[in-house]
Amino acid sequence: MPIPAPNLYPPFNIIRLSHVDFGVKDLAASKAFYVDTLGLQITDEDEQTVYLRAMEERGHHCMVLHKSEESHVKSLSYKVFDEEQLDKAQAWFAAKGHKTEWVERPYQGRTLATHDHLGMPMEFYFKMDRLEPIHQKYALYKGVKPLRIDHFNCFVPDVDAAVGFYNEIGFRVTEYTEDDESNRLWAAWTHRKGGVHDIAFTNGTGPRLHHTAFWVPTPMNIIDLLDLMATTGYVSNIERGPGRHGISNAFFLYILDPDGHRIEIYCSDYQTVDPDLEAIKWDLKDPQRQTLWGAAAPRSWFEHGSVFEGLDPAPSTLGASPIIAP
Amino acid sequence: MPIPAPNLYPPFNIIRLSHVDFGVKDLAASKAFYVDTLGLQITDEDEQTVYLRAMEERGHHCMVLHKSEESHVKSLSYKVFDEEQLDKAQAWFAAKGHKTEWVERPYQGRTLATHDHLGMPMEFYFKMDRLEPIHQKYALYKGVKPLRIDHFNCFVPDVDAAVGFYNEIGFRVTEYTEDDESNRLWAAWTHRKGGVHDIAFTNGTGPRLHHTAFWVPTPMNIIDLLDLMATTGYVSNIERGPGRHGISNAFFLYILDPDGHRIEIYCSDYQTVDPDLEAIKWDLKDPQRQTLWGAAAPRSWFEHGSVFEGLDPAPSTLGASPIIAP
Amino acid sequence: MPIPAPNLYPPFNIIRLSHVDFGVKDLAASKAFYVDTLGLQITDEDEQTVYLRAMEERGHHCMVLHKSEESHVKSLSYKVFDEEQLDKAQAWFAAKGHKTEWVERPYQGRTLATHDHLGMPMEFYFKMDRLEPIHQKYALYKGVKPLRIDHFNCFVPDVDAAVGFYNEIGFRVTEYTEDDESNRLWAAWTHRKGGVHDIAFTNGTGPRLHHTAFWVPTPMNIIDLLDLMATTGYVSNIERGPGRHGISNAFFLYILDPDGHRIEIYCSDYQTVDPDLEAIKWDLKDPQRQTLWGAAAPRSWFEHGSVFEGLDPAPSTLGASPIIAP
Amino acid sequence: MPIPAPNLYPPFNIIRLSHVDFGVKDLAASKAFYVDTLGLQITDEDEQTVYLRAMEERGHHCMVLHKSEESHVKSLSYKVFDEEQLDKAQAWFAAKGHKTEWVERPYQGRTLATHDHLGMPMEFYFKMDRLEPIHQKYALYKGVKPLRIDHFNCFVPDVDAAVGFYNEIGFRVTEYTEDDESNRLWAAWTHRKGGVHDIAFTNGTGPRLHHTAFWVPTPMNIIDLLDLMATTGYVSNIERGPGRHGISNAFFLYILDPDGHRIEIYCSDYQTVDPDLEAIKWDLKDPQRQTLWGAAAPRSWFEHGSVFEGLDPAPSTLGASPIIAP
Ligand SMILES: [Ca+2]
Ligand SMILES: [Fe+2]
Ligand SMILES: [Fe+2]
Ligand SMILES: [Fe+2]
Ligand SMILES: [Fe+2]
Repeated sequence: MPIPAPNLYPPFNIIRLSHVDFGVKDLAASKAFYVDTLGLQITDEDEQTVYLRAMEERGHHCMVLHKSEESHVKSLSYKVFDEEQLDKAQAWFAAKGHKTEWVERPYQGRTLATHDHLGMPMEFYFKMDRLEPIHQKYALYKGVKPLRIDHFNCFVPDVDAAVGFYNEIGFRVTEYTEDDESNRLWAAWTHRKGGVHDIAFTNGTGPRLHHTAFWVPTPMNIIDLLDLMATTGYVSNIERGPGRHGISNAFFLYILDPDGHRIEIYCSDYQTVDPDLEAIKWDLKDPQRQTLWGAAAPRSWFEHGSVFEGLDPAPSTLGASPIIAP
Repeated sequence: MPIPAPNLYPPFNIIRLSHVDFGVKDLAASKAFYVDTLGLQITDEDEQTVYLRAMEERGHHCMVLHKSEESHVKSLSYKVFDEEQLDKAQAWFAAKGHKTEWVERPYQGRTLATHDHLGMPMEFYFKMDRLEPIHQKYALYKGVKPLRIDHFNCFVPDVDAAVGFYNEIGFRVTEYTEDDESNRLWAAWTHRKGGVHDIAFTNGTGPRLHHTAFWVPTPMNIIDLLDLMATTGYVSNIERGPGRHGISNAFFLYILDPDGHRIEIYCSDYQTVDPDLEAIKWDLKDPQRQTLWGAAAPRSWFEHGSVFEGLDPAPSTLGASPIIAP
Repeated sequence: MPIPAPNLYPPFNIIRLSHVDFGVKDLAASKAFYVDTLGLQITDEDEQTVYLRAMEERGHHCMVLHKSEESHVKSLSYKVFDEEQLDKAQAWFAAKGHKTEWVERPYQGRTLATHDHLGMPMEFYFKMDRLEPIHQKYALYKGVKPLRIDHFNCFVPDVDAAVGFYNEIGFRVTEYTEDDESNRLWAAWTHRKGGVHDIAFTNGTGPRLHHTAFWVPTPMNIIDLLDLMATTGYVSNIERGPGRHGISNAFFLYILDPDGHRIEIYCSDYQTVDPDLEAIKWDLKDPQRQTLWGAAAPRSWFEHGSVFEGLDPAPSTLGASPIIAP
Repeated sequence: MPIPAPNLYPPFNIIRLSHVDFGVKDLAASKAFYVDTLGLQITDEDEQTVYLRAMEERGHHCMVLHKSEESHVKSLSYKVFDEEQLDKAQAWFAAKGHKTEWVERPYQGRTLATHDHLGMPMEFYFKMDRLEPIHQKYALYKGVKPLRIDHFNCFVPDVDAAVGFYNEIGFRVTEYTEDDESNRLWAAWTHRKGGVHDIAFTNGTGPRLHHTAFWVPTPMNIIDLLDLMATTGYVSNIERGPGRHGISNAFFLYILDPDGHRIEIYCSDYQTVDPDLEAIKWDLKDPQRQTLWGAAAPRSWFEHGSVFEGLDPAPSTLGASPIIAP
C-alpha cells in the first residue's frame, strides 16, 4: 500500500507538536531526571505538578509532570496557527464523530481535548503564556542542553491506518519503512513544522507512546549526557545508542526516565518545508534503517512503551519483524 | 518606528529562499572556492555556467554561477508553495505596478521575474528538478560540509521601508536593531521557513547583497574550514569570525569568494514557526549584538557588498553607526 | 597478586611504541581501508609493501603493510632514546637468553630484532628517517584524521607474567583489572610515553595482537568515520562502539581491516608522566570497566585477534570471564 | 643565532611544570572566576588561600591563590622525578651561584625555592599529596572543563638567553620565532613532558608572566566558555580568540582573571617525546605564526603581563616587532 499524497490544504493548520503530559509516580525522582540530569528548566511547580521548558522555547511548557498512581501518558498536545484554526479543528473532529471538549489548561488559552482514530488523546491550543527568552542565558544550560521538544513516536497496531488519519489533518510523510511481503507500512515519520517529524508511528501493540524526543545542539552534548548518566546512578537508564539513524539521518540516544517513559535525545535531521519533498522508502530488513552504523536495537526498544491513561492497547495486525539484537 | 505586526495571511505563500545567481569573472576560481573548498556539489555545468547544491538539498540548485564581465548578483530566488501561489504572486506584483515577466530558467518550471520596492531582482518558482538524496553519501562530504542555503542579507538604504515591503508578503521579523535616537530600524531579520531568517536587511548603501549564508552541522565544521582555507591560499578571504552572533545566537564565519561575494557559514539558530513569536529588540550600541563575545566587526563588513546587475545603489538615509573595529 | 612497583630506572630507555608491521593478503584492499578510509598518508610503496604515517608524525612510518600469503603480524616496534640505549637493549635481551639480531629495516638506522618472554616479536631502533611536518597541511586530512599511533593491545595467556616482563623494561601500569577470586590480573595497561598506555595486555589465547590504536582529535572525527564506513561498504567492519571506556576514560571505536586486524580509534585519555601515578584498579565484573556507559562488548571482541607470524598462541591460564554481550 | 642542541642528559630530571602561585586582591572574585566560571576544583581553602586542581590531576594543586595587597606572581613550580633529582637540582643551582632555599609548602614534600638566570622564582618538589581521581566524576565538570595545567609563557628581555638557560636544565625547543634581521630569537617554546611546551618565552619587558595555560578536551569547550563568560559579566575579560595558533597548531583562547593574570585555554597540540624532534622555525613577520587563520593579536597581548613579586622587569634588548592588530 503506497503512502498517500500529502494533504497540502488540510482542514485546519497545526503548527507543530507542543508538549506531553506524563503521569509519574515519584515527582522528586522525575525532577532529578528531567531537571538535574537532562537540563530542562522548571517554569512552575507545586506538590502535584511540574511544568518544564527547553532552552530555546518561549512557550510556558513542553512537558508537564503530574504526580500519579500509575506511570502513563495523559495527552499529546499540538499548537494550531490561530484561534480560527482551533475552531476549525473542533468542527472537524466533531464531524468525524470524535468526542471533543473544551478544557482548562493552566498557562494556555482555550484548549480542545479530543482523540485520534485510535482514541489516543490529542489536545490543541493556539495560545500559551510566552516567557522571556533564556537561550542566551548560558549559565542556565546543563545536562544535555535540551533546546526544544522535537517529536513524538507512537506504537500503533496499524501504521497504514495511522498515516491515513494524520495525513488527513496535514501531517506529511518524510520517510517510511515498508514490509516487502505484505506491502504494508511498518513505520512512518510525519511532520508539520519542517523537520523530519512531529509524530512518527511504529508497528506494535498500541496505541502507546514509544518516545518523546528533544533536540540538542550537537552529538557532543549527547556524549556529555552519557558520561553524566553513567556516573550519577543512571547507567541502567541508557537503553540504546549513541548512533546515527538511517531514517532521518539524525544522531540519537534513547534513555528511560524513572517511570520508564522513553526519551530520545536527537540532533541534526534535515529541513522538510518543501511541499513536494519526496518521502524516502526503507526496507524493513535493511539493518542500516534503524542504525546507519549497523548496530541492531535491543528487544526492549521494540516492545516497551508507555500506555495512555485509561486506554487499552491492541496488538499489531502486522506480523513482520525488524532485526533485533540477540 | 515599531516593527509592523506580522502578516499571517499574506497574498501568496512563499516557502523559503531558494537560490542565488552570481556573475563571476573566473569560473575556475569560483569552482575551486565553492566546490573544492566549501564542498558544494556540482549538479550541472558548461563553459558559462555552474549549478550547485548543498548536501541535504534535493532541489537542483541553491547557487548558479554565470561567467560574467562583472562581479555582480543577477537575482535572488524563492520557492512558492504551489503553482496557484505563483499566479497569485504575479498578480500581486503586477497590481503593485512592479514589472513582472515569465522567464525560462533551466531545471525550473514556470518562473516569475520581478523586483522588490527598491528594484532588487526577485524570482519565484514552484517547481524545480528534484535530485536523488545525497545526504547519506558521506564520501561526498568535504570542506565545511554545507547542508543547505540558509539566508540572504542585503544592504538597504531604508530598513524600515524594506521591512514594510517584505512584511506585506509574509516575511516575519524575528530580531531587529533599532537606533535609539531616531527610533528607526538599523537592521532586521525576517523569515518564512521557520528559522531566524530567509532574508535580513542591514542599513547601508543599497540595495546590495551583503551575504549569502549556508547552514553547516556544527561549529567544528567551521573550524575545519578555517584550517583548510588558512593552509590552501585563502587566508585573506577570511573576513570575520568565527564567533557567536548576539542576534540569532548562531555560530558564524564570514568569508569572501574570488569575486568578493560574501558567504556566511552559519549554524545553530532557533526554531521560529510560532506565529506569535515575539521579535527580539537589540540596541545598535550594544557590542554583543553583532558578536556575543564582544569582538567588533571590521570596517569592510559594514561597507563592502555585491551590487545587483544593472542596479545603482543609493546611500543610506540613516546616519547612525554601530561599533566598528579600529 | 598486586601489580609490581614501577621500575623507574629501567635497563634501557624506550621512548614510545613506534609502528606495527602487518602481513596482508590484498594490498589494494588494505590501502583502500587505511589510506582512503582511515586517512593515513603513504610515505612509500611498491608492489609488495606500503609505508604509512599519521598526520602529526614526522617519523617515516607508523604502519608497514607487507603483501603476504597469510594475514598476520610480523612485529611490534619501539623507539629508544638514542643509540646507547639500543646497545643496552641488545645486551639486556641477550643476557636474558632471548635471541637478538641486528636487522635491516628501510628508513631506519640500526634495528634490533628480539622478542618478549612469550616470543612475541619486538624490534627496537633509535633513528628513523624524519619527514616534513604535514600536521598543518589541512588539505591532506581525511577519514578519521588520524594524528598518531597510540598503543598496542595484546592477548596473553598470563597477564601477571606479561606485566612482570614489561615492567622490568620500564613500562609502568596505569590501570588494571583484577579477577577478585584468583587475585590474578585479567588485563593491564602500561605506558612509556606519558599516556595511559603504549601496550596493554588482555587475558586470552596468546600471544596475539588484539588491536593497534590511533589517536584522533575529537569524538566528532570518530562519528565522521562511522558515517563514512557505513556508507562506503564497510558497515560490517564496525565491531564495537562508539563509546567511552571506563578504563582510560578514552572515547573509542573498534573496526576490523580487510584481513581482520583490529584497529581502535581512540581519543582523550589523560597524562601519566608522574612517576608516582597510582594505578587504578577495576573489578572484572564491573560492567562500566569496558564501557563507562554500560554496553557490553560483543563476543568477537574477546575471542578474535591477529596471530604473530610463525608463533602459535597458547590458551589462557585464567578461567575468569568478563561480561559479554548476549 | 641558532637554537642550541637539546641537552638530552640534563643535570637533574624535571618531569613537568606543576603549578603557579598568584597573589590576588579579591579572593572571592578570583574564586568566582576560576571555580564557578572556569571550572577548577577547590582542594583546600581558608581566608587567605585557595588551592585548586583541574579535572584529571591527582596532585593536590595546579594553582594557589593568595590574598594579597598586590596582583602578582609568587612563583612557578615544577615537579622533579624523585627525591634524588631534587638534591641534584639544589646542587646545580647552588653551584651556579643562584640562591637556593628549602621551603615549607603545604601538601608538598621538601621544596626547593630558587630562581632562573633572571631571578624569576622557580620552585621544585618531588612529592605532593595525591588525591582521589575525579576525572570520571562527570557531575563535577563545569565551565571549560579544564583537564590539566599545560604551560607557562613568560616575557623575557632576551629570549636567546632564556632558551640558553632552560636548555641547560633539559627544556627542549619545539618551535621558535626568529627575527630575520638580527637572527635573534623573538619567541621560543620548550618542553619537558612531551607536549609543545612546559614553558615558552616571548620577547618583551621581563621577566613577567605572560600567561598560564590549561588543557581542555575540545574546541567545543572553549566555545562553551565564551558563551558563558559573555553572558555572566565577563565579556571584557575576553582578550583574544578563539583561534588556531600557527605555532603549536593548538586551538586557543586568552582571557584575563580579575587581577589581570592572563589565562590561556588550550587544546590539541602534538606529541613531542622524540629526542630527535626537529624544532619548527617561524618568521616573526609571518601573520599565520600567531594565528593560523590570519587575525592579528591585539596590542594588549604584546604589552600586558603579570609581574613577579618583588622583581623589577627590564625592557627588551630586541627591537623587532610582530604584526599587531590596528
Ligand atoms: Ca601527551
Ligand atoms: Fe525519534
Ligand atoms: Fe547572516
Ligand atoms: Fe586500546
Ligand atoms: Fe600558550
